[in-house]
Amino acid sequence: MANDKPLILVTNDDGIFAPGIRTLVEEVLPFGRVLVVAPDKPQSAMGHAITIHSFLRLARVDLMEGVEAWSCNGTPVDCVKLAIYKLLGGSKPDLLVSGINHGANISINVLYSGTMSAAVEGAMEGIPSIGFSLMDHAIEADFTHVRPVVRSLVKNTQEHGLGQGYCLNVNVPKAGKGPLKGIRVCRQARANWEDEFEARLDPSGKEYYWLKGEFRSEDHGEDTDVWAVDNGFVSVVPTQFDMTAHHAIAALNTWDHGR
Amino acid sequence: MANDKPLILVTNDDGIFAPGIRTLVEEVLPFGRVLVVAPDKPQSAMGHAITIHSFLRLARVDLMEGVEAWSCNGTPVDCVKLAIYKLLGGSKPDLLVSGINHGANISINVLYSGTMSAAVEGAMEGIPSIGFSLMDHAIEADFTHVRPVVRSLVKNTQEHGLGQGYCLNVNVPKAGKGPLKGIRVCRQARANWEDEFEARLDPSGKEYYWLKGEFRSEDHGEDTDVWAVDNGFVSVVPTQFDMTAHHAIAALNTWDHGR
Repeated sequence: MANDKPLILVTNDDGIFAPGIRTLVEEVLPFGRVLVVAPDKPQSAMGHAITIHSFLRLARVDLMEGVEAWSCNGTPVDCVKLAIYKLLGGSKPDLLVSGINHGANISINVLYSGTMSAAVEGAMEGIPSIGFSLMDHAIEADFTHVRPVVRSLVKNTQEHGLGQGYCLNVNVPKAGKGPLKGIRVCRQARANWEDEFEARLDPSGKEYYWLKGEFRSEDHGEDTDVWAVDNGFVSVVPTQFDMTAHHAIAALNTWDHGR
Repeated sequence: MANDKPLILVTNDDGIFAPGIRTLVEEVLPFGRVLVVAPDKPQSAMGHAITIHSFLRLARVDLMEGVEAWSCNGTPVDCVKLAIYKLLGGSKPDLLVSGINHGANISINVLYSGTMSAAVEGAMEGIPSIGFSLMDHAIEADFTHVRPVVRSLVKNTQEHGLGQGYCLNVNVPKAGKGPLKGIRVCRQARANWEDEFEARLDPSGKEYYWLKGEFRSEDHGEDTDVWAVDNGFVSVVPTQFDMTAHHAIAALNTWDHGR
């Protein structure tokens, strides 16, 4: 690959053959050289997992003309590490984009999301990184309205750069809910999952469980990502990897730690 | 189990038969009733992964007298969800402790750590939660000096409670480095992993890779967890699940998002 154009690393968690990543590659291709390293199978909800108890493999994939693409048997974060430390020999891409995820990654879902964990890993490596998600789980989801959102945010990120220590978490409402009202920079809404396990019996009569859950947000702040997407906006949350609750340090220092 | 004593949920990522979790159970048993739900095999570096593409199982385990213990085929976060939403029918334990991890979870390792992700999940459920890690990967690690640290922090947490939105990330230096100098409340140090992939050939001549990495911290702040453990202290970092980079919102609002 020629070295005069910026290098853009693309990954996701739905797997290299998901329509979302193809859309993303198409939209970032005008902005630079593109290297794709993505999981060989769905890796949703893998969070920031990495593979240390087993080994990794890479396989060249024919994804799109003019694009170097590899599938990996690991997690989204493994893909980022393999791209940088194996394929690029330790040098960093100029931009990392992850997604477009089939499904929302608003609020606390950022913690479970493989798509966003790949972007967070990019930020940890000092790379300007953006995770894109569409609020539609369907494999045949319509990404048309997401395309200009990708272009706008990639253009702004290339022009302005991103500060150290964070990446962007971008969520786009599902198609068919009227035209997008614009892009809003937000904070991560407070929310929780009301989980449930559906018990079933296997043929030998032994119980097993499927996780089902309902997402509940009672944080109605108009500065939140949940409010933004519920009201027709694209949400952009700057997402950092410093997890320190700095405000709590003073209170913990009042404890008697000597006993 | 009688209902008058607080209920303490114990989990880890090294698996239910690791010496670290046995030590933790022994130390928290005087503080309440204990329910153990932990992975049936090592789940280190699984981060906040949950199991959604497959099913989960629970199996009763005979761990210790007077302790209800279950192993689970999923991740540490799966264990927390199964404990609350399957075994406890949706009611929350009064305290969650995770560990004692065989290995450090200082600095950015909090993001990769299954031990800490279980504690973060507890915080997301509104449960006072603490993750304990010993800076010694060995299976035969000496946990003797960690025992009073567990008792001190559990006692303080039961007396003072923890604020909403965060848990505690506790790291204890390896045994044999002199007596502990005390407990220090810290922030998560900035650091990175200088990764490397060791390539090998399988018997058919196909390449595969093992992740190797070197942890590098150039953040020498005396208020960091890295400084604390390097200087003989126990580090305690309040660790939150709001990943918003609040300070970055203003800068992102100066971008032209309309184009």
